[in-house]
Amino acid sequence: MPAYTAPVKDMQFLLQDVLNVTATGVPGYEDLDAGFTAAVLEEAGKVASDVLAPLNAVGDRIGCVLENGVVRTPDGFKAAFAAMKEGGWTALDCDPDYGGQGLPYLMGTAVGEIFVSANMAFNMYQGLTHGAYSAIHAHGTEAQKAMYLPKMVSCDWTGTMNLTEPHCGTDLGLMRTKAEPQADGSYLITGQKIFISAGDHDLAENIIHLVLAKAPGGGEGTKGVSLFIVPKLLVQEDGSLGARNAVSVGKIEDKMGIHGNATCVMNYDGAKGWLLGDLHKGMRAMFTMMNEARLGVGLQGYAVAEAAYQNAVAYAKDRLQGRAVTGVANPAGPADPLIVHPDIRRNLMEQKSFVEGARALTFWGAQLIDRSVRQGDAAAEGLISLLTPVIKGFQTDKGFEMAVQAQQIYGGHGYIEEQGMSQFARDARIAMIYEGANGVQALDLVGRKLAQDGGKHVMAFFEMVKAECKAHDGDARMAGFVEPLKQASKQLQAAGMFFMQNGMKNPNAALSGSYDFMHLMGHVCLGLMWTRMAKAAYLALEAGASDTGFYETKIATGRYYMARQLPACGMHLARIETGADTVMALAAEAF
Amino acid sequence: MPAYTAPVKDMQFLLQDVLNVTATGVPGYEDLDAGFTAAVLEEAGKVASDVLAPLNAVGDRIGCVLENGVVRTPDGFKAAFAAMKEGGWTALDCDPDYGGQGLPYLMGTAVGEIFVSANMAFNMYQGLTHGAYSAIHAHGTEAQKAMYLPKMVSCDWTGTMNLTEPHCGTDLGLMRTKAEPQADGSYLITGQKIFISAGDHDLAENIIHLVLAKAPGGGEGTKGVSLFIVPKLLVQEDGSLGARNAVSVGKIEDKMGIHGNATCVMNYDGAKGWLLGDLHKGMRAMFTMMNEARLGVGLQGYAVAEAAYQNAVAYAKDRLQGRAVTGVANPAGPADPLIVHPDIRRNLMEQKSFVEGARALTFWGAQLIDRSVRQGDAAAEGLISLLTPVIKGFQTDKGFEMAVQAQQIYGGHGYIEEQGMSQFARDARIAMIYEGANGVQALDLVGRKLAQDGGKHVMAFFEMVKAECKAHDGDARMAGFVEPLKQASKQLQAAGMFFMQNGMKNPNAALSGSYDFMHLMGHVCLGLMWTRMAKAAYLALEAGASDTGFYETKIATGRYYMARQLPACGMHLARIETGADTVMALAAEAF
Repeated sequence: MPAYTAPVKDMQFLLQDVLNVTATGVPGYEDLDAGFTAAVLEEAGKVASDVLAPLNAVGDRIGCVLENGVVRTPDGFKAAFAAMKEGGWTALDCDPDYGGQGLPYLMGTAVGEIFVSANMAFNMYQGLTHGAYSAIHAHGTEAQKAMYLPKMVSCDWTGTMNLTEPHCGTDLGLMRTKAEPQADGSYLITGQKIFISAGDHDLAENIIHLVLAKAPGGGEGTKGVSLFIVPKLLVQEDGSLGARNAVSVGKIEDKMGIHGNATCVMNYDGAKGWLLGDLHKGMRAMFTMMNEARLGVGLQGYAVAEAAYQNAVAYAKDRLQGRAVTGVANPAGPADPLIVHPDIRRNLMEQKSFVEGARALTFWGAQLIDRSVRQGDAAAEGLISLLTPVIKGFQTDKGFEMAVQAQQIYGGHGYIEEQGMSQFARDARIAMIYEGANGVQALDLVGRKLAQDGGKHVMAFFEMVKAECKAHDGDARMAGFVEPLKQASKQLQAAGMFFMQNGMKNPNAALSGSYDFMHLMGHVCLGLMWTRMAKAAYLALEAGASDTGFYETKIATGRYYMARQLPACGMHLARIETGADTVMALAAEAF
Repeated sequence: MPAYTAPVKDMQFLLQDVLNVTATGVPGYEDLDAGFTAAVLEEAGKVASDVLAPLNAVGDRIGCVLENGVVRTPDGFKAAFAAMKEGGWTALDCDPDYGGQGLPYLMGTAVGEIFVSANMAFNMYQGLTHGAYSAIHAHGTEAQKAMYLPKMVSCDWTGTMNLTEPHCGTDLGLMRTKAEPQADGSYLITGQKIFISAGDHDLAENIIHLVLAKAPGGGEGTKGVSLFIVPKLLVQEDGSLGARNAVSVGKIEDKMGIHGNATCVMNYDGAKGWLLGDLHKGMRAMFTMMNEARLGVGLQGYAVAEAAYQNAVAYAKDRLQGRAVTGVANPAGPADPLIVHPDIRRNLMEQKSFVEGARALTFWGAQLIDRSVRQGDAAAEGLISLLTPVIKGFQTDKGFEMAVQAQQIYGGHGYIEEQGMSQFARDARIAMIYEGANGVQALDLVGRKLAQDGGKHVMAFFEMVKAECKAHDGDARMAGFVEPLKQASKQLQAAGMFFMQNGMKNPNAALSGSYDFMHLMGHVCLGLMWTRMAKAAYLALEAGASDTGFYETKIATGRYYMARQLPACGMHLARIETGADTVMALAAEAF
């Protein structure tokens, strides 16, 4: 069965050496000294290794069961959820006004990675609650906040997000779920929602569903959509739980992975709901949480890959098979460990360099959200808005790919469920789909984010990359980072230029390259991260850090990424520059 | 539930227009006129659509069950297997001396694709039997052939291949299974074999296991390995079935996919076996079948992708979501079908252009095997030996990737098992692993095949590509094929040159690039195939073919591949040329 150990040292390197958190001036970051963050991460790591990771395979094997209208989670989930609540982990980055600990989102992200790596399906119960908490926190009335938030911060009550319907996922304008206004100011919600993660379960006293529905008078398409709070059990004025609301589970989906999380069909049959935020502005309310939610899914992409990688490394060191081509490496044994073979190394280096790069990007993204939320920094908000589809789309594509590569290290054993490597691949697969399928992320990036605010944010990003390169001018040690980054950044700019020159005449010419652009930009982002990490590692070495091996490994891992991953940028640019000609050449009937 | 229709027209195009089979002079090909091949493929297509495809999801859901030592296949498999036998499909390309129909391997390959697309797991019972049949046919005594082959051609008896043991898969020199010679000339086989596909089941009267084991006096490593025939039920001199042999099923593996095929742990407890081929030459006997077996797995890669693609297309045409960016395409409906969106097109074109290219390469490979076997053509044998790891490794990697992309078209619905798209991805995954994991294919290609016979075969391949390009000199219509192919071929040659110049000093410098080389060569092969297909399509159009749309679609699909897939070659070359430096930089402990 797979094991998991939190990569505390790698995280500490990012927080303390690379992001240098206490020096940033972000409110709340002043408390994040090395001793404090290490303590938090190590404690989270213990829960992850001891409580969550052992339940990962259990959740996959047993899954969730719907019995007499009630969802039962896998054996052990209840106790683990209680442990998470007791440890205060559900409240980590929530508002102290409602019982939260008020830590920055960055710390919630780091701890979140640890929990997702250990047990992605389990962590979703809490993750969805956090999303619903954020929505109510941002858009709720004072009364709503007082009524729901404390219980959601503690996860006594959990939350869900209800968007998708059988006939519409991406195109929510087609939505059919209706909200009828009542005399008392509430609404009656009627319709069917599907793919509702954590839609029902036995882990909490109540479930607070956030439901998109159409109220009268809102007009066509997404314009008419509003957001409603629909509790499973109605909450009485004194805060106690009252009658069962008219919401029920139609069925649990049988999925490829994340079996430990109940993905439900939810039927709303005149369920009582209350408007959250402004009438007919439901889409906007949802979208204000989108950056966080998508960053969270981008995190899942590399977090699952990290867990898979750890086990692939262990297997590669342990399994004896064949002899090193350069001479016997393990003369005492019948064969050498897999890790001596260059192609096994290539595979592991791809995983390692991706996961560490993606972690850096995600932590940086979390810091941008903190800057935006805690400092009202508009530039940070614009930048994270631009980066969000990249973090979501690129990291989940690559995360899945890396989980598949980790599985490959096991040979035939990787295909056997007992080993747990298949689960990583199957679980990671969903992250490419939900919270906006990756094709939609690419469309968001190229069709919306590039031109947002007159292209200001993408220009700022290019300037940032340029400044980073310039900062290391003349530093020979950094040439292996700066040169590939410069070239990749130029290729990204050329792709953007191609879109500008061709997209106006023919939008298809830009959108045919959107997916490649997302990946090209992902590589540039990770190249930027590795450049920053390498510099931080050199600085630590210069400053006389005792663990020289750790920092040298960082630099070598970064060199791998720059040398062997950034060449993908040229390929993506070449593909982009072919435009729509070959992509759109066929009539639909020709397929 | 997914549906499947055999792509008879595409196959006919390859057989008749591209390979021009009746004009090749290969013995047996003279019968393969268009009317005959169409009749065979259409008949196979009916069995596939009506009998096999409906059982694909059933096999996945129910799987195989081990009860009281006996494996039960999923509901409906028995009847379907009976139908396959009755239709003569198991005997198609077998030797008429033993009841076969004697058709070329090429036709077995085309029909095999159809059956694999419809139901990969089911088809393995027959596929493994074919492999064992070939081994006995090639290495058996006349008495052995007479005893086993007729029953295996009819699939009254099925076959298995037993190589892997718990502690060794790739490195068979570590094998522990023993063969003790008996006075009567037989051997007693003792040991445990794992991952035995179709190891036991209820579809046949008897199962003929081919087992690798170590007989005394053979020396260390793979040199001491011999191949044995070990029937489940002993066969008496009159051909009737006798006592149960001492071979039993330890367990069935719970796998990520191909649930319909029983993957067994087989325990040999002094089971009676008979030497097949020469003593201590078991590995060689196995390897003579390797080209066929690996070609068969490479076929699985694209055949499953074909089935996934067909369903992705149907979904993309049917599902209404969003509006075309260039203007409403379906004004009568609430939204446009997915297929109007450029990124959906990109996805579908990638699938389509890969599957059709891989089919061409596989059919060509099958023809090379026919040339080698039926004509003793050494050049053909050398060429297919070179191409085999490319067909196996590249096509199964890409086939899986394309099945995952097909699943992506379904959005959230693709993650739900009910839709069947997850099964395609899970089933396709195994092809990257078994019959030599793809890293081993890359090692075989770069470490062995490139230099085989003094590099003669790879030089011949380059000459062939060059001649193909030259043949279309001055044909402006073909420039979109010839130019990218020339460039890709140059990149492949540069990679080979890099290996020659650096591999002698440091073998790791070559082997660090082996995986990239396999993919680079895969793209060159498919580029060559598309060039040939485009030319054949132009010729058909010139000759006044009535179905102009079909041929124009071929050309457009090829243009997509050349324009948008061949740019990967430059990336692979760049990666290769970084050598071992970054790949092997870390000590094992640093991971």
